[in-house]
Amino acid sequence: MSESQTADHRIDARWVLPMSEGTPILENHSVIISGERIQAIVPTSEAQQRYPDIKTTQLSDHLVMPGLINAHGHASMTLLRGLGNDLPLMEWLQEHIWPAEGEFVNEEFVADGTLLAIAEMLRSGTTCFSDMYFFPETVADVAHKHGIRVQTAFPILDFPTQWGSGPEEYIEKGLKLHDRTRNSNFVNVCFGPHAPYTVSDEPLKQIATLSEQIDLPVQIHLHETAGEVTDSIQQRGLRPSKRLADLGLMTPLTQCVHMTQVDDYDLGLLKETGAHILHCPEANMKLASGACPINRLLDAGINVALGTDGAASNNDLDMFGEMRSAAFLTKLASGDAGAVPAMEILKMATINGARSMDMEDRIGSLEPGKQADLIAVDLGDILVQPVYDPAPHLVYNTNSRQVTHSWIAGEARLIDGELQKIDLHGLRGRIQQWQQRISAADRNR
Amino acid sequence: MSESQTADHRIDARWVLPMSEGTPILENHSVIISGERIQAIVPTSEAQQRYPDIKTTQLSDHLVMPGLINAHGHASMTLLRGLGNDLPLMEWLQEHIWPAEGEFVNEEFVADGTLLAIAEMLRSGTTCFSDMYFFPETVADVAHKHGIRVQTAFPILDFPTQWGSGPEEYIEKGLKLHDRTRNSNFVNVCFGPHAPYTVSDEPLKQIATLSEQIDLPVQIHLHETAGEVTDSIQQRGLRPSKRLADLGLMTPLTQCVHMTQVDDYDLGLLKETGAHILHCPEANMKLASGACPINRLLDAGINVALGTDGAASNNDLDMFGEMRSAAFLTKLASGDAGAVPAMEILKMATINGARSMDMEDRIGSLEPGKQADLIAVDLGDILVQPVYDPAPHLVYNTNSRQVTHSWIAGEARLIDGELQKIDLHGLRGRIQQWQQRISAADRNR
Repeated sequence: MSESQTADHRIDARWVLPMSEGTPILENHSVIISGERIQAIVPTSEAQQRYPDIKTTQLSDHLVMPGLINAHGHASMTLLRGLGNDLPLMEWLQEHIWPAEGEFVNEEFVADGTLLAIAEMLRSGTTCFSDMYFFPETVADVAHKHGIRVQTAFPILDFPTQWGSGPEEYIEKGLKLHDRTRNSNFVNVCFGPHAPYTVSDEPLKQIATLSEQIDLPVQIHLHETAGEVTDSIQQRGLRPSKRLADLGLMTPLTQCVHMTQVDDYDLGLLKETGAHILHCPEANMKLASGACPINRLLDAGINVALGTDGAASNNDLDMFGEMRSAAFLTKLASGDAGAVPAMEILKMATINGARSMDMEDRIGSLEPGKQADLIAVDLGDILVQPVYDPAPHLVYNTNSRQVTHSWIAGEARLIDGELQKIDLHGLRGRIQQWQQRISAADRNR
Repeated sequence: MSESQTADHRIDARWVLPMSEGTPILENHSVIISGERIQAIVPTSEAQQRYPDIKTTQLSDHLVMPGLINAHGHASMTLLRGLGNDLPLMEWLQEHIWPAEGEFVNEEFVADGTLLAIAEMLRSGTTCFSDMYFFPETVADVAHKHGIRVQTAFPILDFPTQWGSGPEEYIEKGLKLHDRTRNSNFVNVCFGPHAPYTVSDEPLKQIATLSEQIDLPVQIHLHETAGEVTDSIQQRGLRPSKRLADLGLMTPLTQCVHMTQVDDYDLGLLKETGAHILHCPEANMKLASGACPINRLLDAGINVALGTDGAASNNDLDMFGEMRSAAFLTKLASGDAGAVPAMEILKMATINGARSMDMEDRIGSLEPGKQADLIAVDLGDILVQPVYDPAPHLVYNTNSRQVTHSWIAGEARLIDGELQKIDLHGLRGRIQQWQQRISAADRNR
């Protein structure tokens, strides 16, 4: 029998799904947390002997797994969710979203919208999210203050916005933010050139050089629609993927968002360069953009992570729903009901997300030494019975409201469905004010 | 000022979405219920004057709408949900589902499975469901006892099953059930020939004749996959749709489930005959069957209703999720982000479902004289804010757990999220036993 050991917190769970290579689902196991890290995962019977006196959370009907990683989104656009639906993409953008952004986006908008997004994400099992939006300094501050992990991709475009005058200023401000947050346990910064069609060659080359020099990831919307690819071929004589590769921007640090259009050249390029795919199935469906062939990408060994995209286009930030949609869509699009089984979908929402952000050594699976970012899902509700196999149940039969607990860096963020550390009452009032102002302006246009 | 009037119950809601032709969403209105019917829908300020002293339910953050109608499913297969996932259709059926059905399906299985399904459906906003499964007498009894509306499509196949020896006995038993339930307010019976490939011409002709004589609907799986159509053309020289039409089985009483394959002939046939389509997008995606072109069908004036299909293939009975998937899928499949806007999707889940079952005069919308089948959805949760437009919010941003109340024929079935009239504790024990037995048998195969 082991001797009594020290740690801070013991979580006894009906099931633990570590999502680490080669470890299956574990029954009646405990996760032992020390400080901000996972110390061990052991059978609960053993944990009771080794850690008898530490703080204990009993989760007898629950599955404990790594916190979900939302690999792509625009958090503060949550304030614009449902502003115009069922419209062709350009009409929606030109008549609703862009005017609202032009009129309202400022630091306060980003602070309130990001906090609303964080509340929704924590409530639905996300513990780390990627963000691409204006005022990334504010996003970083809000995430840091509320203890949720963020990768903030600071935006870079050819033209001026509320946040800056052009590529030079965007890059300068972004790198300053990177310097300032270098020691944060919660904030990662990366380059966020918006898309090949909004950023010209010079800034893209500069980003490629800087990314390599300082080892910083680059997130970019790529091949979102077929039109983007044909426009590029018409205007420049080459696919956007090829253009990025020529500019030195397809590397293991590159995160390609969407990629609904993948030909053999793209597949070879992605495989050869180690660039990552961030798949956003619901936004791709709702905006009729197309279906990213994730089965072919995964078969080729390319890393595919999952994101919700912004709530303005989707219209939520629910990674459980996104997993389900990803599974459904790939089966339909490939014509194969066996394509991309549930465990692969779960990897996309956890360890593959970590890998895409170059954070695989810290998060994305439950392993000793990694950050204690984990969630509990109640599988005991009569309405989701029977549970023949818990892992696929997470993908095909779990409502995000079944998420009951989450911890980030060892600290509780959600307990029994209640958000910790977020003043929902104050937030509600501010959201109502935004809604009234944005709604009135939208009606008057 | 109107004088005080009598009624049984007044529901004051922030929004009422009647889903009746030409009536938009109403703000601060009340639904007045008398007995099992809707008496009136009036502004709450007026209701307070006219009905001051009757029982009142205040729903200040809620939207009240017709109860959802799940137009196709196999309720008791809920006991088999998650038994085998990510498998090709025939492997899944032959190695998991059919052996489990062969070993376990009996009246007790159907009673427990149907009650579990009813609990899930009531909790997620469904007040009327269609069912196609063995022992329909049991389904009818369980639905009647728990006060949920059902259309039970009694199964007809060429071969013997646990429920009967062949077409003759199936039809005899089904019509007996129809006689017995003729006066029930909750139970409708219809013919349920399984599919063109499992029922031969003679019984199909007999069903066509009987359906016309006694004015009883017919529900049949049709064109679920491309393979079904090509097989029929190869074996019989004609499409299944044409074969049914030739046998007199395409009429305004016909409910065609799935129809992922629709060519110009089919479109013309459906339009000309007035047959209905029951669309099950999630099952069609998960089983990689195809995408029913609901945009083209609706444009042609064909009635399209929505169903979840059985939880064994889907894996839940959540009509809010199904609405969202229907919207996403049609936009992607048609390449048009504007295809089938949210209000059309909401019709599919309400009035179109009623129309498909020939119950349009009784349910499917909130109108004076119709049955009081209605639900309330809490749109006040901070996590779903802002709400710019409540109707699309129901499709794109509503989690079924936001359903707080439901009434069927004027009686409460769900209050503040709590199911009435269902002994969940007793049910839980029985479900656990089924799971253990079915799971053990599945592992030993």
